[in-house]
Amino acid sequence: MLREAIYHRPKNNWAFAYDAAHIYLRIRTKRGDLTSVTAIYGDKYAWEKTVERSEMRVFASDELFDYWETVVKPPFRRLRYAFELTDTEGNVAYMTEQSFQTEEPQDSLSFFDYPYINPIDLFQPPAWAKDAVFYQIFPERFASGDPSLTPAKAEPWGEEPTPSNFFGGDLQGVIDHLDYLNDLGINAIYFTPVFEAPSNHKYDTTNYLKVDPSFGTNEKLKELVEACHARGIRVLLDAVFNHAGGTFPPFLDLLQNGADSQYANWFHVREWPVSVSEEGIPSYETFAFVASMPKLNTENPEVKRHLLDVAKYWIEEIGIDGWRLDVANEVDHAFWREFRQVVKTANPEAYILGEIWHDSLMWLQGDQFDAVMNYPFTNAVLDFCSYGKLDAKQFADSIGNQLAAYPLQVTETAFNLLDSHDTPRLLTICDEDERRMRLAALFQLTFPGVPCIYYGDEVGLTGGGDPGCRKCMEWDEEKQNRDLFSFYQTVISMRKEHAALRGTNFSFLSAESGSRLLAYERQEGAERFAIVLNAADEAASFTLPAIGEGARWTDALSEGAQLKPNGTISLEAYSYAVLRA
Amino acid sequence: MLREAIYHRPKNNWAFAYDAAHIYLRIRTKRGDLTSVTAIYGDKYAWEKTVERSEMRVFASDELFDYWETVVKPPFRRLRYAFELTDTEGNVAYMTEQSFQTEEPQDSLSFFDYPYINPIDLFQPPAWAKDAVFYQIFPERFASGDPSLTPAKAEPWGEEPTPSNFFGGDLQGVIDHLDYLNDLGINAIYFTPVFEAPSNHKYDTTNYLKVDPSFGTNEKLKELVEACHARGIRVLLDAVFNHAGGTFPPFLDLLQNGADSQYANWFHVREWPVSVSEEGIPSYETFAFVASMPKLNTENPEVKRHLLDVAKYWIEEIGIDGWRLDVANEVDHAFWREFRQVVKTANPEAYILGEIWHDSLMWLQGDQFDAVMNYPFTNAVLDFCSYGKLDAKQFADSIGNQLAAYPLQVTETAFNLLDSHDTPRLLTICDEDERRMRLAALFQLTFPGVPCIYYGDEVGLTGGGDPGCRKCMEWDEEKQNRDLFSFYQTVISMRKEHAALRGTNFSFLSAESGSRLLAYERQEGAERFAIVLNAADEAASFTLPAIGEGARWTDALSEGAQLKPNGTISLEAYSYAVLRA
Repeated sequence: MLREAIYHRPKNNWAFAYDAAHIYLRIRTKRGDLTSVTAIYGDKYAWEKTVERSEMRVFASDELFDYWETVVKPPFRRLRYAFELTDTEGNVAYMTEQSFQTEEPQDSLSFFDYPYINPIDLFQPPAWAKDAVFYQIFPERFASGDPSLTPAKAEPWGEEPTPSNFFGGDLQGVIDHLDYLNDLGINAIYFTPVFEAPSNHKYDTTNYLKVDPSFGTNEKLKELVEACHARGIRVLLDAVFNHAGGTFPPFLDLLQNGADSQYANWFHVREWPVSVSEEGIPSYETFAFVASMPKLNTENPEVKRHLLDVAKYWIEEIGIDGWRLDVANEVDHAFWREFRQVVKTANPEAYILGEIWHDSLMWLQGDQFDAVMNYPFTNAVLDFCSYGKLDAKQFADSIGNQLAAYPLQVTETAFNLLDSHDTPRLLTICDEDERRMRLAALFQLTFPGVPCIYYGDEVGLTGGGDPGCRKCMEWDEEKQNRDLFSFYQTVISMRKEHAALRGTNFSFLSAESGSRLLAYERQEGAERFAIVLNAADEAASFTLPAIGEGARWTDALSEGAQLKPNGTISLEAYSYAVLRA
Repeated sequence: MLREAIYHRPKNNWAFAYDAAHIYLRIRTKRGDLTSVTAIYGDKYAWEKTVERSEMRVFASDELFDYWETVVKPPFRRLRYAFELTDTEGNVAYMTEQSFQTEEPQDSLSFFDYPYINPIDLFQPPAWAKDAVFYQIFPERFASGDPSLTPAKAEPWGEEPTPSNFFGGDLQGVIDHLDYLNDLGINAIYFTPVFEAPSNHKYDTTNYLKVDPSFGTNEKLKELVEACHARGIRVLLDAVFNHAGGTFPPFLDLLQNGADSQYANWFHVREWPVSVSEEGIPSYETFAFVASMPKLNTENPEVKRHLLDVAKYWIEEIGIDGWRLDVANEVDHAFWREFRQVVKTANPEAYILGEIWHDSLMWLQGDQFDAVMNYPFTNAVLDFCSYGKLDAKQFADSIGNQLAAYPLQVTETAFNLLDSHDTPRLLTICDEDERRMRLAALFQLTFPGVPCIYYGDEVGLTGGGDPGCRKCMEWDEEKQNRDLFSFYQTVISMRKEHAALRGTNFSFLSAESGSRLLAYERQEGAERFAIVLNAADEAASFTLPAIGEGARWTDALSEGAQLKPNGTISLEAYSYAVLRA
């Protein structure tokens, strides 16, 4: 038994309450090292009368480790526990908070402790998010519905995007295309910023309380939100609270009045006078080194008041369903804790989504965000389906690692994107090979969490990194890839119809080293699906598991795949099959 | 290189800001497996121009692992980093957030991220706590100064304590003995509860805003606090916010009016009517299963308001310097976050000390407590010095594990007790062998953190677990162990005089397996001490390290130890020596 590999530390992803009654316990061991792990648990104040044992199961694995899990119900909301570990040679060890030992400990005082389930500390993202399929819209490029708003400098719709040009997308344009979005099947939209700002992306806010005039008015946004709600579509706006724009009036005041400005403490000035060095380093904190994106001092009560009022206003007055938080990890945790309280008071069902590209555990404990933009998921899926960097085993290891890294609730509402306004487009990442793109999208749409489709991917839009990925939406059906649209439509519809495809029961059926064939199972109640992806450039086949007397697998959705009566499925290069038991 | 042993996950004890400029990075590896670890770090938005390398050092080890550390200064408050690991065979590996690899990664996007140092998120306990030596007083048993307050049912001072008897200790008694405390040298007092309550221990509060009449008045407490402050002694009170007492008026109202009580939601009633089952299980939540200690619903805004007003009142009106929080881990995190804000607003230098007997990381991140009662420290010291359960190596492993388990700030102000009103007394734990007691106390008083002496230990009070450990203080000097008092006085005075003995530079000089001789070094600036403890029942000797031309070790404090000119020290059974370079 490799003791160095064994890890457990209370709370976080290792011991967490799922609801007011249940606690999940997890432990990590060296992959393949153990044959069984049992949790020994009970109430700390009535140990002898309450002690029980619960067999744990390997719920995820990665390259080095197995992750074991069980869910227990503490008799009085308090939990004391330890682990009994048995290895492949039959050696038994006990792990408590204080030691490893080979004899079962008699004194439970040394055990681990989950002191008490307090409901207010529970991590409970909004229930609707578990069933959401998001669509990300970059408003300047989605659709122009009110030509009177189009900036004079705008270029003709569909020209090549540059970092600074305009095309005239607006909110009316979105309203005009809600039928289209309904048709696609999405039920939530995330808008990149819509507040008044000089740039086309609007991440440099001038006025947090006003829709950008080239997009419309606050009333128009309210109309849009209501139209969305009427169609069962929820709306998320982008909160750019890490930094303001160069034309934000308090910043202009700072530039004008320097240290005497009444807004001197709204920013982080390192050195007066406010300036930018020859090397391009501003004398005040900024997003990256962008002089026109001065970092806001979110520790200043006045700044905090302003931003929290903003957070509340758009929920209460305009009716939005949550916020996506730009550069969320550079803002203080204290601010986000207050933010959550304000937002959840205004709308207990609001979804709070942080932009964090890295390990996000410290923001996902119930007191700050409901989810983060899940770029580790993005990377794994693209490396397997699109870039071909990972084989099936490496991909499964990466997914297993992610499942183990967070409490279950995080998996349920993780925001699983494949591309965005900050990355090249999916089809471009796939070298414009639509087959590979479909594999990636199929995995995304049959995995737990909240899938998000970047506008236009569904009709074959291409483009490299910013600005290429911010092309105008293609509305000419002749130029749209309608096959791809149908594919998205079908898979979204399947996901919405079958809880098995969106729940958290996920297990790999095949993920071999050196292979690029991946098979996994999805199950919920009586529903059972097997999904097979061949991410290789040559044909492959896979024999589905037996599913009992009289039952058999049927083809629910496939392309380039053929199911034989014996349960073997043959797949062409870059093809897939969704099979239903 | 054993990859399964290597651990790092951003924030917590692995990557933490110490102040607004510095970040500590730590990584865990298999003990003895690596010869060097280097942190590669820089600014994420200017990587090429800012990348630097910092050699890490093993700052702690335990049975299985080495813990490496370095402190770096991010150029712009943001940090991107990875680790270069070299093993004893010369193999080199690179650890990033996404992978281990043998080639130095070219793309720093995959590195770990400490997004931004926001001062408000810093974990900064009050500076005075680093220099504090606490004394814990159980007021009913310390001294009677105002016989008019002594309960009629009180027994003569010095009789045997029972769970429910009284002796008449009071606040005037403490005031009368401040000279004594000054003489001992302590500079902070932690009082177990003083608020009105029926029991002798007063953990069953009747009125959170009133000093118990048998102890005195609120004014008397203010007089005591002011007298303490005048002598440089700070005062901590005990906040019993997890549960109230059976005579707490809202609870009496609940008992009387049941579900109709206006206080129905102040508690956690599982089942109406409020009752206690034949097996002794109350139909409402309690501390353990104690019917007269109903758990408070700290999620209820009214309860919260009341308790936070209490927290503020004793700081603002009476002038106390902080709170010790009873059963702190069973109260919700959300409550403690608000509590911290209220307390620190009332007194930014207040010390917030939680009672948690287990792993306490989730409460020690800057948003909740400044410290917890460090029972893991207690256990290790007693197991080595008193019970003889650990050899020197096992003891050093346990201490190493504790040092690595938390950010440095936690070590600086951890509340290191050896006994309390909840455990047997130190001398009794040592089988009344004063030599062993001195070893334990010497270690406690020359270790980083906040040592706390339980009243009377310093004059040789004995007693088993509650109620034995709650004996009346011995004020008859004839019956006091004055030698022991002098020992405490001397060591406290040395600690106060020499920053080296209380700072965090701590390293073991000798901690061999099978041996019970322990030697460690303490250093700060030019000051350097070596401390040698012989916790064996036979003589032992140790050769001090060479300290350079012309310098030599001198005996600063020893008992049963003899230093030879060649730097070898011989120690009798259970003896010690403090040597100064």
